[in-house]
Amino acid sequence: MAVAAFHPSVSQAALLEFLLRIGDNALILGHRVSEWCGHSPALEEDIALSNTALDLIGQTQLWLGLAGEVEGKGRSADDLAYLRDGFDFRNILLVERPNADFGKTLMRQFLFDAWHYLLLRALRDSSDKRIADIAEKAFKEVSYHLDRSRDLVIRLGDGTTESHRRMQEALEDHWPYTGEMFLADGFDAELAEAGVIPAPESLKAGWEEIISEALLEATLKKPADGYMHKGGRRGVHTEYLGFILSEMQFLQRAYPGATW
Amino acid sequence: MAVAAFHPSVSQAALLEFLLRIGDNALILGHRVSEWCGHSPALEEDIALSNTALDLIGQTQLWLGLAGEVEGKGRSADDLAYLRDGFDFRNILLVERPNADFGKTLMRQFLFDAWHYLLLRALRDSSDKRIADIAEKAFKEVSYHLDRSRDLVIRLGDGTTESHRRMQEALEDHWPYTGEMFLADGFDAELAEAGVIPAPESLKAGWEEIISEALLEATLKKPADGYMHKGGRRGVHTEYLGFILSEMQFLQRAYPGATW
Repeated sequence: MAVAAFHPSVSQAALLEFLLRIGDNALILGHRVSEWCGHSPALEEDIALSNTALDLIGQTQLWLGLAGEVEGKGRSADDLAYLRDGFDFRNILLVERPNADFGKTLMRQFLFDAWHYLLLRALRDSSDKRIADIAEKAFKEVSYHLDRSRDLVIRLGDGTTESHRRMQEALEDHWPYTGEMFLADGFDAELAEAGVIPAPESLKAGWEEIISEALLEATLKKPADGYMHKGGRRGVHTEYLGFILSEMQFLQRAYPGATW
Repeated sequence: MAVAAFHPSVSQAALLEFLLRIGDNALILGHRVSEWCGHSPALEEDIALSNTALDLIGQTQLWLGLAGEVEGKGRSADDLAYLRDGFDFRNILLVERPNADFGKTLMRQFLFDAWHYLLLRALRDSSDKRIADIAEKAFKEVSYHLDRSRDLVIRLGDGTTESHRRMQEALEDHWPYTGEMFLADGFDAELAEAGVIPAPESLKAGWEEIISEALLEATLKKPADGYMHKGGRRGVHTEYLGFILSEMQFLQRAYPGATW
């Protein structure tokens, strides 16, 4: 028999928005990373990246499953993943950026993992028990993701002239997409106030520390904070999301309700 | 009042198959070429390529429109374009090959145009008046496509060292996909016998002549005929078609029946 969990009294709209944001980040990054399956430069990397993708898709099921429950319209995690169009997606823009070369993929992963790690670590103490439970499970996986992407960024940054050049380029390329992680709106404020989530900006100092230390070891130069792109969290996406969705959703769109 | 056109007594299956083949070639190549819109190396090329794409999509409407009529199940050209899955597409593999660089796009176009030109020229005398009428219109457009792609292949082949190298590479890359143009099966035989279409193999000598002359001027070396890929004409496609369809069909799949 299930014991009724404590759900702090926050608005359904705010809770749903948060769950879509965290779930969509996992889904879109998971899909992007899965594109490497069978194409990585070494077998070990192929398996590691595919495992990362699987972890993220697994987390998606939990976050979007809870989102569907909170929404209360009978939509499953699958419905939310496969039957929403781009303007209903809430992921940050960073995760939809193209894989490009291995260096860009790893740098994107590291910048995301460091933030994801801190976010999940804090969410383990969420006042919403359902969120704390998912965070507990995801945190273990993401700790490992961060170990791995951090290690590879350092090895390739402090590697050959070519790998160093590529990592520096990747860093500069992705940097303007990192600001969106720390933005907050009314939904965030309401949830943070109720102890459901940490205030987004509260993660910034810890993230800067993880990043700065790794970049120092990697002999990479941290870019200055300039213009930061945003929009994903409210459904305004780059051109890439539509292409991801058209591929990801083809089966359910072409064969509605298909199961096996 | 429409005058009843003469329709030779061939099987509906053969006629439908031919119409899908010629219509799908135009549709898939048209889609591929349209991907250059806004990305070409020069404005004039951008406009020219986009016009080529438009011509091909216009021809698609005619061919697939007639296919739907012949099929007699009430499917429109749009239904056939947007609601079939890959295994129902009948285009040759050449037209689904990726654009890659401008040289590869142009070489694919030239190899296709030369064949398309000869095919349409012959189809103007089709014993099926409906086919002859569409061919008449398309032939004018495709004559111009061929002039253009032939001219550019010559200019770039006989251009700089780099452009020459790229054109030679493109030629070798696409060559194994040209054999499929001249394949014939029972459907082709039946239609050729009734004077509806030319026998596919009858176009080969003329095609070889157009190609050889242009390659000579372009200072490009014609590859030897080796293994030739096939399958598209019976629905067995390369990995690329699925990606094309998922993008091309997204709107009708996500919003079934959408009109404006």
